[in-house]
Amino acid sequence: MARAWHLRSRPSGTPTSDNFELKEIGLPELEEGMVRVRNLWLSVDPYMRGRMNDVKSYVAPFQIDAPLEGGAIGEVVESKAEAFAPGDLVQHMAGWRDEAVIDARTAQKLPNLGARPEQFLGVLGVTGITAYFGLLDAARAKQGDVVFVSAAAGAVGSVVVQVAKAKGLTVIGSAGGAEKCELVRSLGADGVIDYKAGPVLKGLAEAAPDGIDVYFDNVGGDHLDAAFAIARNNARFAICGMIEGYNQREPMAFRFIQRIIAARIALKGFIVFDYFPRMAEFYAEMAPWLADGTVKSRETVVEGLENTPDAFLGLFSGANTGKMLVRL
Amino acid sequence: MARAWHLRSRPSGTPTSDNFELKEIGLPELEEGMVRVRNLWLSVDPYMRGRMNDVKSYVAPFQIDAPLEGGAIGEVVESKAEAFAPGDLVQHMAGWRDEAVIDARTAQKLPNLGARPEQFLGVLGVTGITAYFGLLDAARAKQGDVVFVSAAAGAVGSVVVQVAKAKGLTVIGSAGGAEKCELVRSLGADGVIDYKAGPVLKGLAEAAPDGIDVYFDNVGGDHLDAAFAIARNNARFAICGMIEGYNQREPMAFRFIQRIIAARIALKGFIVFDYFPRMAEFYAEMAPWLADGTVKSRETVVEGLENTPDAFLGLFSGANTGKMLVRL
Repeated sequence: MARAWHLRSRPSGTPTSDNFELKEIGLPELEEGMVRVRNLWLSVDPYMRGRMNDVKSYVAPFQIDAPLEGGAIGEVVESKAEAFAPGDLVQHMAGWRDEAVIDARTAQKLPNLGARPEQFLGVLGVTGITAYFGLLDAARAKQGDVVFVSAAAGAVGSVVVQVAKAKGLTVIGSAGGAEKCELVRSLGADGVIDYKAGPVLKGLAEAAPDGIDVYFDNVGGDHLDAAFAIARNNARFAICGMIEGYNQREPMAFRFIQRIIAARIALKGFIVFDYFPRMAEFYAEMAPWLADGTVKSRETVVEGLENTPDAFLGLFSGANTGKMLVRL
Repeated sequence: MARAWHLRSRPSGTPTSDNFELKEIGLPELEEGMVRVRNLWLSVDPYMRGRMNDVKSYVAPFQIDAPLEGGAIGEVVESKAEAFAPGDLVQHMAGWRDEAVIDARTAQKLPNLGARPEQFLGVLGVTGITAYFGLLDAARAKQGDVVFVSAAAGAVGSVVVQVAKAKGLTVIGSAGGAEKCELVRSLGADGVIDYKAGPVLKGLAEAAPDGIDVYFDNVGGDHLDAAFAIARNNARFAICGMIEGYNQREPMAFRFIQRIIAARIALKGFIVFDYFPRMAEFYAEMAPWLADGTVKSRETVVEGLENTPDAFLGLFSGANTGKMLVRL
């Protein structure tokens, strides 16, 4: 019998394991155009917190007592779809479960790029696309720029650091704690800020005495305010995530937001889906970087379907280095 | 003897008349390349508040016990500069005083556009340029857009409303009190919000039930937060001013700033100086609009050099409708 994590109740503030329930599910009959997939890897991502609220956004909210969804890599075990055969590795959105019967049109075969399958949930997947286009398109990072990235030891941030270095830019990353800071440095960052060791603004002002040209925001709050404070003229901010605000209902407060005007700062929010049509462009640059070691894939792996909520909850306490994955 | 308003002390919070002092000044000898100007009109503008703080910004701070500066229209009464003759009307930055001796290179003769001289401090000057390029360049307003503008009865806002209507856009303006709201409506606004009558977000959600595509921000604070809340996908915000924050040291708090991400909002701060090279483009469109009544010039006129600080202070209590001017 297949099992899937269900949303038992909507979290108020930070989610807890009580919000989740693992239940057996009946799978539909395999009909024409469908495939049966046994999942190998599940993705947990901060954006899923937003789907747990009952509000309209760019993806529909999760429903109470329905299986959760998310990126997953699985193996086709039975197929009634022409293009798929047993043994094919596919990427799809029926995550948070061990087995699924899905419309084959919602599954993509993993391209042959010489990468490990789980990397298509990370550096070669949504995580990598987010980092790549956020930095190069939303923030229009260019030669000579000083780039600041928050959550630089996290899934997206760790790729941003490496893409920026691959492009020859100066990069300052922030992370929480000595161990993560060391990782960020090992990725090539020119400067590292430990936000748990002191105020972000103080650390950033020291690491970037002449200011920053680009800020890649994964967290909002104090990091964003510090970026406002020391942005150079015509700085560009890619607003990718604001994880600090996902679990709290308090407004975010900014002391330096008025500098948007004097420094002519441009902020651009973006959603990774918008860049899916440009996947080929992304693969063409990222796959060789990964193959030659310019970009290294970082993952934190949690074992077993049972621990999926723990993996997800760990995102909000900084339990992960690089991409958080669940291996089944 | 010429007289000029000096900065007696730096305001902490909202300025008061105690921060200003009117003193006689000795004018320098008229040397080669200089003109003596008798001022006719003085401009007071919200951005001057920023110059009263001792912080580096896009213009240098005012100095204690030195004459204040600002836009002014004057008549040349004596000239040792080739291009200027007595009787010429010029625009220059030696405002806050009745007479000045200035380097002729810092004065511009008023172009012959059939306009009243004081309009070059308003709709044909910095005010108009700010409105025009903020709306059309920084916010990239385009056919079909729903535009929201705050301080819509103010100097810049009242021009934004009219330029947006001249371009065939839908415009919602906010202003404080019934009288100003009536003015905004008379400028052609499709919807008007009285921010003194209730929460901005409530008013905006009613006036723009399908959301907004453009927000022209003159105030920051609750208005900006309301714009975040109901922005449509790919909305563009021109960040021109945040007058709510100029006098307070409290951070601005935002409940809806995270919508930058889901709605892919782009914010762009700008400074009017950046558009000075495009003045010809501006005159070519604005002068005919003004001549044929498409755009009307709105001014609040305070009489006499003595009352210049009062005119300035009135900007922060909403004493002006349209451009605030001092007539000497």
